[in-house]
Amino acid sequence: MTFDPWLIAPISALVSILVGLYFLRYINKQDSGNERMKEISRLIKEGAAVFIRREYTTLAIFLAVVALLIGIFLPQPVWQSSNLLLNLELPVVYLFGAFCSALAGYLGLNVATKANAKVANAAQGGLNKAFPVGFRGGAVMGLSVVGVGLLGISIVFGLTGLPIEQAVPAVLAFSFGASTLSLFAKAGGGIYTKTADISADLVGKVELGIPEDDPRNPAVIADNVGDNVGDVAGMGADLFDSYVASVVAAMILGAALALNLTGVGLIFAQIPLLFAAMGIFAAIVGALSVRVGPKGNPGNALNLGTYITTSIFIVLTAIVTWQLGPSWNLPSGGEWRLWGAAVVGLIAGVIIGVTSDYFTSEDKAPVLKTAEASKTGAALNIITGYSYGLRSVMLPLIGIAVAAAVAYEICLPLAAAGDTSFAVYGIALAALGMLSIVGLTVSNDAYGPIVDNAKGVAEQSGLSEEVIAITDELDSAGNTAKAITKGFAIGAAGLTVIALLAAFQEIARANGIPNLTFDIMDPFVLLGALIGVGVPAVFSAMVMLGVGRNAERMIAEIRRQFREIPGLKEGKPGVKPDYAKCVDIATVGALRELMPASITAIVITLIVGFVGGIKALGGLLAGSIFSSLLLALLMSNAGGLWDNAKKLIESGKFGGKGSDAHKAAVVGDTVGDPFKDTAGPSLNTMITVMSLIATLFATLIIKYNLLTYLKIQ
Amino acid sequence: MTFDPWLIAPISALVSILVGLYFLRYINKQDSGNERMKEISRLIKEGAAVFIRREYTTLAIFLAVVALLIGIFLPQPVWQSSNLLLNLELPVVYLFGAFCSALAGYLGLNVATKANAKVANAAQGGLNKAFPVGFRGGAVMGLSVVGVGLLGISIVFGLTGLPIEQAVPAVLAFSFGASTLSLFAKAGGGIYTKTADISADLVGKVELGIPEDDPRNPAVIADNVGDNVGDVAGMGADLFDSYVASVVAAMILGAALALNLTGVGLIFAQIPLLFAAMGIFAAIVGALSVRVGPKGNPGNALNLGTYITTSIFIVLTAIVTWQLGPSWNLPSGGEWRLWGAAVVGLIAGVIIGVTSDYFTSEDKAPVLKTAEASKTGAALNIITGYSYGLRSVMLPLIGIAVAAAVAYEICLPLAAAGDTSFAVYGIALAALGMLSIVGLTVSNDAYGPIVDNAKGVAEQSGLSEEVIAITDELDSAGNTAKAITKGFAIGAAGLTVIALLAAFQEIARANGIPNLTFDIMDPFVLLGALIGVGVPAVFSAMVMLGVGRNAERMIAEIRRQFREIPGLKEGKPGVKPDYAKCVDIATVGALRELMPASITAIVITLIVGFVGGIKALGGLLAGSIFSSLLLALLMSNAGGLWDNAKKLIESGKFGGKGSDAHKAAVVGDTVGDPFKDTAGPSLNTMITVMSLIATLFATLIIKYNLLTYLKIQ
Repeated sequence: MTFDPWLIAPISALVSILVGLYFLRYINKQDSGNERMKEISRLIKEGAAVFIRREYTTLAIFLAVVALLIGIFLPQPVWQSSNLLLNLELPVVYLFGAFCSALAGYLGLNVATKANAKVANAAQGGLNKAFPVGFRGGAVMGLSVVGVGLLGISIVFGLTGLPIEQAVPAVLAFSFGASTLSLFAKAGGGIYTKTADISADLVGKVELGIPEDDPRNPAVIADNVGDNVGDVAGMGADLFDSYVASVVAAMILGAALALNLTGVGLIFAQIPLLFAAMGIFAAIVGALSVRVGPKGNPGNALNLGTYITTSIFIVLTAIVTWQLGPSWNLPSGGEWRLWGAAVVGLIAGVIIGVTSDYFTSEDKAPVLKTAEASKTGAALNIITGYSYGLRSVMLPLIGIAVAAAVAYEICLPLAAAGDTSFAVYGIALAALGMLSIVGLTVSNDAYGPIVDNAKGVAEQSGLSEEVIAITDELDSAGNTAKAITKGFAIGAAGLTVIALLAAFQEIARANGIPNLTFDIMDPFVLLGALIGVGVPAVFSAMVMLGVGRNAERMIAEIRRQFREIPGLKEGKPGVKPDYAKCVDIATVGALRELMPASITAIVITLIVGFVGGIKALGGLLAGSIFSSLLLALLMSNAGGLWDNAKKLIESGKFGGKGSDAHKAAVVGDTVGDPFKDTAGPSLNTMITVMSLIATLFATLIIKYNLLTYLKIQ
Repeated sequence: MTFDPWLIAPISALVSILVGLYFLRYINKQDSGNERMKEISRLIKEGAAVFIRREYTTLAIFLAVVALLIGIFLPQPVWQSSNLLLNLELPVVYLFGAFCSALAGYLGLNVATKANAKVANAAQGGLNKAFPVGFRGGAVMGLSVVGVGLLGISIVFGLTGLPIEQAVPAVLAFSFGASTLSLFAKAGGGIYTKTADISADLVGKVELGIPEDDPRNPAVIADNVGDNVGDVAGMGADLFDSYVASVVAAMILGAALALNLTGVGLIFAQIPLLFAAMGIFAAIVGALSVRVGPKGNPGNALNLGTYITTSIFIVLTAIVTWQLGPSWNLPSGGEWRLWGAAVVGLIAGVIIGVTSDYFTSEDKAPVLKTAEASKTGAALNIITGYSYGLRSVMLPLIGIAVAAAVAYEICLPLAAAGDTSFAVYGIALAALGMLSIVGLTVSNDAYGPIVDNAKGVAEQSGLSEEVIAITDELDSAGNTAKAITKGFAIGAAGLTVIALLAAFQEIARANGIPNLTFDIMDPFVLLGALIGVGVPAVFSAMVMLGVGRNAERMIAEIRRQFREIPGLKEGKPGVKPDYAKCVDIATVGALRELMPASITAIVITLIVGFVGGIKALGGLLAGSIFSSLLLALLMSNAGGLWDNAKKLIESGKFGGKGSDAHKAAVVGDTVGDPFKDTAGPSLNTMITVMSLIATLFATLIIKYNLLTYLKIQ
């Protein structure tokens, strides 16, 4: 038996999980510090565990209902099905996808809530001791995301791989399962974290003037829990879903090549897995190489890791292309066109990340001007920050557009004139390339909330100013990394859903609609597109209003505790607030609020499809992509820049802490919180879910929709 | 010589202008009150005149440059032109369009700045005496807009009407001229008015706690001037441009029918003029019938006028269709399909207006919840209001989408199967229908700033509380009318640019690209669309940052005056602030800031066209339409609801004037100011200008663009 190159993907995934476990052991061996630190860490861990347990329980019911519906209707309605085993297969794969997504999130969360006190403790030995604890804590999450993701796809594909017609719905169902869970995890975590953050800040910082993370504040533990369930578990789920979707979209378009072209095997469905495996190896090397000296700069270390990973990915995929490419049966040198598409995507991703960085950096015009405008009051802080947020969308949009167009044109000549199948496959490979190094970007990103929490632990347990300063430095590097990852994540989601739209078109073609186009001047496409433009807006509104409602309940509770617990405000020794009550309010509220928005997005997609037909559905996806890219970029960047404008003022500029400018900047930061951590990033997942559900139900919708029934279309 | 029904359009336009003059004479006969009132009115009039003079002078240079470029390149570059007279014709028509737009704005402004004191004076005799002065003052503007607009088109069409190939670029150039001027007038006026408004409020209300319109405030005159140049002249220009563009788009699509189908005369280019004429007659009757009793409700009176006008339009166009329809040579009863499309558009417009009203009404959930959230501070006021703004976009988008789809389907059967030319003509007629009653909606809208100013005059000249209460009641009716008009204007602009996109496609077809579609999966369409999504965001950012910068300068000046002029703050008799200085700052700043954003939008359109070709340009327009509808609806509605949440609190709810909730609501209102009065409404005009420039240059771009030159496309 010769070695099948396809096996490289599951092998890389296992290696990734093993390295993750190695990092986990490293974290476990670190000391968690004194009793007070251990207690805080335990409270955070428990709060997070309670939330995740309750969230997953609630979701289990919802997932079961969706799985049932999938089983009844897909791939054929049971009453028409020739093989009922197939109707059993898809719901199982769907639940498996959801399970993998939950698992990756859980692993990351578990480590993150352990690592915070360990980072704080290590910081007593200096920056170079604390940094690896924080980074490797994040890397457990990063490597789990790609490892579990690629392993899951490999298992599904390996078990259902032939005939390819069967593998397509299976990998789609896996991806849809992952995305459903991610959507709820992201929205739920996002509502939780911002409820706690806003409430803690508004009562603590603004009304009472006590510092952030002050142990007297009843919401402080809920705030720390929120960082973990929102930024670690939520963000991990978000990128898990984009990552899986990008691989799946490329596999489906590759499978379509196998079906449409003669003499082409399954190879084009396997190349995405191969490239993804190289991304994993690159991310492992990158993660192992990240380190910082005693006087080093953690931000530079994180960025260096990104550049190393990017370079290794380019080299490794080039080697694979060189070695295996000739067996792909492409016109002479054609394999390099596929490689080129992936590289274009990755480079575009890095460029998008860097431009987001510009709009949120403390030494660049957007943050400086916003901070300066704060001197004239909160209103001008908001207007200025919001305007720069609006301005920030253009370059990433151009980056996505150019990456898609270049990848398309590079791969177009691989097929006969007039056949665009390789060209859209090129777009999917560009999306995959952009997401290939997700193992590292998630590591960088998850590092952020860990060190942020470490700072919280250090402050609450009264460690020295010097130690707090070290955790502060670690934290500010985390903020920059976060801005870059967000740009990356939005860009990648954009390209991925464009690839999914192409996959959707392929599936429609395979079902007897050969010339399906999404012409904007077609009234049904236009109808769908205009409704689609509204969906991300309504979704964002619903989650943000959820944060607002939830925060109002929590603010009332915090004020009550300060009023009714004697000695709390004054910080009398031994007097403790009721942390658990605030954790409970955040949990219950987030669970109540996370469902309606997500269900709305799913239901609108199905209604537009089953009423308006396949063209309206294509339009809906297109409109939603445009509007969610706009809103996601706007909200993420505006939120980030308000945050940093406030930090800049706190560092002493434009009046410094406690000045009127500072108060104005706090308003901007609070507005930005749900923008950047609840609504903005959830949109990535929302649009992926919409695309996947449309693709999965495409076959059914083509057969059964109201307009066809009424003979209007 | 028999009577040509085509002549009805210029006749209706002349009648409209005559009725406008009759209202003007009525206004002139009213008494302006005591010396103090006359002086304030004179100051406002002078300030507005200075701004308009300087604005038009600046624009004249820009318009001359554009006219020169048009002359050189259109319809053929001069070095290839067979008939140089044609190269002379378009710039002349372009300048004529700009002149007509300026004229309509000037007439409205002139009356509005006279009417304010007269309304205040009449209010001493009761509500029923003051109301007609305010309404008829606004109606001068409303009737001028439609009269001058339709007369201008009629003249251009009458002089160039045959051959039809020549009339198309001519009416386009006229519309483009009108839109260029409107864009600058809207952006310039919008920046002016919000600079003054924000600065006056922030220093006066927030810092010093003196009432709005207090004569001690150095910015009070600039603020009143701003209402006129922004809300009267700017808004009039905005609707002038949408109105003209909707008629022109329908004419072009009608002309295309004449060219493509055999046996069809010019009639389909003339029907839009005929329907527009019926709209004018309906608006005249509506305007003459608006009145209110001594204890009447001015808001109801305005709404009744809208319903009357709508009904009359439906009846008049039905009569025209019944009388003339049989001569249109359509399949039996086909003329009623065209009528149906226009009526669908109008009804959709009314529905959109009513839903915007929901989101900005003081007794509905959005405003109530936003006001309530203010109790928890400015941040939650902003988050809540913004979220409701996001939510408000869905229904109008569905309204536009359904109107377009229904009009399309109604008219589709008029052509042979597979031919969509009548269907897109139907969309254009729906846009025209929605805008047909503009004569009345502008009257209602211009009424708002007049009575707002009347209230200012009453307060500054110390009229009795009773009189001020009457002006207050008039004002609040104006706010509701304004919200409805804005929804109307955005919906109409959306449908109009969709029709223009169809016209753009027609022109491309006529130039040898028969099967031009804008398929989202085409990489060039996608490239254009993604860039297009960014354009309205960047445009909005530029004008809002312009307001921010300008306001900072003005705030510094107001603070200086309060600091340096002895006795000003205390209101010592005889001590007057330097109003002129503030007027000057607003003027200079607005002129400096209005150019860059507008030029950016125009230049991006041309670059995308000449680089990416006709498909990228189509994509750009589509992307811009989607994103500008989203942003315009969001910003207008959020702005309106913040304003009313503040008013609700000022009326005594949730803590009332001076409470913390009130301060928070003032922040929201201030953020909403540039949203609703600068950026939001300018987007309508921006997208119309982009569509017109693309359509005008389509022929040239098809021949000369980089991608075709490089043989990539």
